[in-house]
Amino acid sequence: MQFHLNGFEPGDPTIADPARRDAGSGASGPLPQEVDVLIIGCGPAGLTLAAQLAAFPDIKTCIVEQKPGPLLRGQADGVACRTMEMFEAFGFSERVLKEACWINETTFWKPDDRVRENIVRSGRVQDTEDGLSEFPHVVLNQARVHDFYLDIMRKSPAALEPYYGRRLLDLEVDATLSGDDVNPHAVTVRVERVDAAHEGQIETIKARYVVGCDGARSVVRKSIGRALHGDSANRAWGVMDVLAVTDFPDVRFKTLIQSAKDGSMLIIPREGGYLFRLYIEIDKLDAGERVSNRNITSDDLIAAARRIFNPYKLDVKQVPWWSVYEIGQRLCDKFDDVSADNPARLPRVFIAGDACHTHSPKAGQGMNVSMQDGFNLGWKLASVLRKRSPSALLHTYSAERQAIAKELIDFDREWAEVLSSAAKSSATADGNGFDPAATQSYFVRHGRYTAGTAAQYQPSILTGDATYQHLAAGLTIGMRLHSAPVIRVADAKPIHLGHTVKADGRWRIFAFGGAEDPAAPHSGIGRLCHFLADAPQSPVRKFTPAGEDIDSVIDVRAIFQQSHHDLAVETMPGFLLPAKGRFGLRDYEKIFSADRRSGDIFSTRGIDRERGCMVVVRPDQYVAHVLPLDGFEQLAAFFNGFMM
Amino acid sequence: MQFHLNGFEPGDPTIADPARRDAGSGASGPLPQEVDVLIIGCGPAGLTLAAQLAAFPDIKTCIVEQKPGPLLRGQADGVACRTMEMFEAFGFSERVLKEACWINETTFWKPDDRVRENIVRSGRVQDTEDGLSEFPHVVLNQARVHDFYLDIMRKSPAALEPYYGRRLLDLEVDATLSGDDVNPHAVTVRVERVDAAHEGQIETIKARYVVGCDGARSVVRKSIGRALHGDSANRAWGVMDVLAVTDFPDVRFKTLIQSAKDGSMLIIPREGGYLFRLYIEIDKLDAGERVSNRNITSDDLIAAARRIFNPYKLDVKQVPWWSVYEIGQRLCDKFDDVSADNPARLPRVFIAGDACHTHSPKAGQGMNVSMQDGFNLGWKLASVLRKRSPSALLHTYSAERQAIAKELIDFDREWAEVLSSAAKSSATADGNGFDPAATQSYFVRHGRYTAGTAAQYQPSILTGDATYQHLAAGLTIGMRLHSAPVIRVADAKPIHLGHTVKADGRWRIFAFGGAEDPAAPHSGIGRLCHFLADAPQSPVRKFTPAGEDIDSVIDVRAIFQQSHHDLAVETMPGFLLPAKGRFGLRDYEKIFSADRRSGDIFSTRGIDRERGCMVVVRPDQYVAHVLPLDGFEQLAAFFNGFMM
Repeated sequence: MQFHLNGFEPGDPTIADPARRDAGSGASGPLPQEVDVLIIGCGPAGLTLAAQLAAFPDIKTCIVEQKPGPLLRGQADGVACRTMEMFEAFGFSERVLKEACWINETTFWKPDDRVRENIVRSGRVQDTEDGLSEFPHVVLNQARVHDFYLDIMRKSPAALEPYYGRRLLDLEVDATLSGDDVNPHAVTVRVERVDAAHEGQIETIKARYVVGCDGARSVVRKSIGRALHGDSANRAWGVMDVLAVTDFPDVRFKTLIQSAKDGSMLIIPREGGYLFRLYIEIDKLDAGERVSNRNITSDDLIAAARRIFNPYKLDVKQVPWWSVYEIGQRLCDKFDDVSADNPARLPRVFIAGDACHTHSPKAGQGMNVSMQDGFNLGWKLASVLRKRSPSALLHTYSAERQAIAKELIDFDREWAEVLSSAAKSSATADGNGFDPAATQSYFVRHGRYTAGTAAQYQPSILTGDATYQHLAAGLTIGMRLHSAPVIRVADAKPIHLGHTVKADGRWRIFAFGGAEDPAAPHSGIGRLCHFLADAPQSPVRKFTPAGEDIDSVIDVRAIFQQSHHDLAVETMPGFLLPAKGRFGLRDYEKIFSADRRSGDIFSTRGIDRERGCMVVVRPDQYVAHVLPLDGFEQLAAFFNGFMM
Repeated sequence: MQFHLNGFEPGDPTIADPARRDAGSGASGPLPQEVDVLIIGCGPAGLTLAAQLAAFPDIKTCIVEQKPGPLLRGQADGVACRTMEMFEAFGFSERVLKEACWINETTFWKPDDRVRENIVRSGRVQDTEDGLSEFPHVVLNQARVHDFYLDIMRKSPAALEPYYGRRLLDLEVDATLSGDDVNPHAVTVRVERVDAAHEGQIETIKARYVVGCDGARSVVRKSIGRALHGDSANRAWGVMDVLAVTDFPDVRFKTLIQSAKDGSMLIIPREGGYLFRLYIEIDKLDAGERVSNRNITSDDLIAAARRIFNPYKLDVKQVPWWSVYEIGQRLCDKFDDVSADNPARLPRVFIAGDACHTHSPKAGQGMNVSMQDGFNLGWKLASVLRKRSPSALLHTYSAERQAIAKELIDFDREWAEVLSSAAKSSATADGNGFDPAATQSYFVRHGRYTAGTAAQYQPSILTGDATYQHLAAGLTIGMRLHSAPVIRVADAKPIHLGHTVKADGRWRIFAFGGAEDPAAPHSGIGRLCHFLADAPQSPVRKFTPAGEDIDSVIDVRAIFQQSHHDLAVETMPGFLLPAKGRFGLRDYEKIFSADRRSGDIFSTRGIDRERGCMVVVRPDQYVAHVLPLDGFEQLAAFFNGFMM
């Protein structure tokens, strides 16, 4: 898709008339008085959380935002492979694939050895290593990511719309109501309306849970007495979206330029084929100096970009958005309101996204990690509010996401150092250079990190131990389910196994068949299905409410190594062809075979062909456990650990 | 995507609440008094035509429909590969891929040799041969195809909405105004409003062109004195969409069942994972007997299906839609109002879809061919109305589409015969059987036909001769452009070359480079670009209006056989990096290389590696010509044949 040719226009580019691209002005009327979950802030974390909660019509969610309406331009743009996998679960990956700019290769430029004030290309790498994900790394205006979430929310069972023009004043947790499992409306929140028509009106809302997705200056964070810790770095960067004419040949590649004397610049090509973004290094700030004191203008940024581009020309025609910021890697020590002196107290208030971790945007991680915060918290809140899990499950949010954020900050600091350091390398002659080869090597090594696929949760009630990891060596416990192609047996459709995991709050058990005849009554899959269907200790029996479909809490799917032509649905256990809904219609989408043409999942994911195994996958697509097919007790014990 | 579990619900299944799926009630107010094109009927042909014309804000189009609103259920469901390719050009293929049911394999069932009243599986074939198209064969409720078109129309520059509740009364062509190129509003149409609020109101509208997409009982057809010719076959079929429970194992495959004594049945699995369609043979009608006289009910169809299914059970829970019809392959001899005694007279009225060709639905062709009618006529009307082509271009619509429809009827009659004939084969013992092996073989041989990729236009002003066909042996002149993967050089994105062809009325020249260094100034591509950019006889120079982008009429793209790493955009002719729009931004999406990982297009499409070639592609994706890279004169002559 090509668009923005005659100037940047916000909104859905498939609507020809920009004036008809209204993304909706949100909910009207006053806030509800009482809700289950109140989300503060319509950024990536808040919208991911809201979209997840909107899937449950029995949960009353409210999301408020200080701005008068949806975001239209600017801010983040990187969408990592891992995020695309999550968008697939939310049901809009195909829209992003179509509209976004794909990052296919990254190129590196350095000073020309002959004429040091010129730059020359020093290298080129494939952006994402083969097989890392079934999705590419893409970039897209954050505003469009918001739009897709808003669309999903609107279409969801809860039909959720944000309340715009609301500024959080303060919140109070009634400690006397905390500490039990009935989820009282223990948090009282005061919000001020800031739109012209209602300016100054105060609204009070009571919530069982409040989630602060209100950015780096989070009021929620302050209200629970937490702070961001870390160095405020003394390095400033400018970021600028431009429509420009240049003879620089790599302007449609992600490109890192390190000039001899004018600093570094990162080029991010953007959606629509014409727009691109420049991250431009501004010279060092003095200790204590704030970038705002420099009075930097977009013309300053253009001038700096031109110096770095030498000998190439840059003729900027339009700057739809620009900003100047200081790099600051900062982190909260905890992402909820549970204090260290009373760690058993149940959390009532959470923070997510920039409210609890900030960082340089150059690793392209910010928006991505924030969305994973929201995805992590969303299903847990739903599980507790729907009485499927005890409230103690909510402790795992801070534990899991704080550790991941810390890793990100560490990675980000290191990466920023590599980008910025002008005196780091001993490999250059003048002592004022850098090491392009080292940068490129670093970039390649950290590809998995940047793709968002390196995150791993540590053992906990939600993450099993590695005793049986060898049965599925390529599906790492604690890491996101690495999807692979399979064939659906009932209709021979080639699909991605991971795409059966939707953002619907359900758990999955993927049962991989062993070497035996799958139709044999005592096959591993046959006995597992018998256990799951009939045994009193079966988590499926135990945790599925009466009257609901058998797969409504735990969705069990089987994958066989035989060709789909050698399998017969009519010989499969009835548990894998469940009768569902008011008519008792059969669900034919539970049985799969390896897809030998696209890569046999047993080979690519290291499944034990002799024994098979079970892979338990969380509602947020992370692998929770790997167990033998007959690991009935361990399976029951695992689910008993966090379900009720 | 799974849906319809608790009963069929029309509309967009991603909207959770069926009550919020309103697809729009169309345009309000009276009809305009004067339009360029008036389309009668919101079926597949009419909507394809309307969606094409809606791309041009300078064309005034009106589409009317007798029904009170959008179609909600029933009718056709087959979407051939070729149709998916067209949907890609219209910009909604990804939505259909996601929502539709994919037909991956077809199975065949026959009487059990041991127990003749039972059926057994006799064979299984892959539905679409490898490499036939980059898209699968899918099935989806015709109503949803309409919805996608309506959405495209709404978003298009012309922002088109149908006028519902309008019944065509009559039309009159003022012959005194015909025969010239100024496109007068020569057709006067009278329409009656049939909605309750305006019942009986008559509206008169004048149009330059009228297109009758008003179905098998077309009033437009009658008004221009044409008739459908052909046999009214004496064979009746029932069609029924069901939500049902069955132990028949292939209910999610397209399945052809031929029973020993109870006739044939075709199963079409449908979108959402639960719904399926049954086509059931009803016994022969007597000569002159109409199926309507039989008083067949849906219970009769269910009973017949149960007999054919023996020994499998069928428990029907819901019948969202059903119908009974006679097979009739019928065809008009001409698809416009130009009479044989005055063939040079310019056409003013056209007919498309079922209005000019009807047939059995079992080949799954009806909706597909009708849409191709609309696609064929759409760009031609736009080209004439926008004064890019003389009106005589419009003669090619009937010439091209009538020949294709005739081929379809012939194929369809043969196919229906194979399905229906119970006494045809000599291979069965009792003389009352059929030949499953012959049926299956027929099915395989005709796969390309069914996929819609076999259609070929004969040489004409729009279809060149085969002199240079050998330079691109796999891109057949007169057939649809068979896409293949390529790499976009400026950003290394893997894309499908054919997907650069959008439904925007533009012509394409794909210039494939020869063996020489592409950067050499006198390379074949270099000299072609020089000709196209500068020569007075260049069709690009000649036919592009002043002030419009250089690719607004003819879009030229180059494909090189070298790896994209061995190509440099900065060494390419400026013509391939055109400055566009009000800022003169560079378009980086004109230069491609072969994609060796996904199949080198030079090999898969038989491009002459030594000489290269030009492939000229029509706005409706058909290959118009293949010429040598230096075939400047032939290229100029070709475009001079139909452009002005």
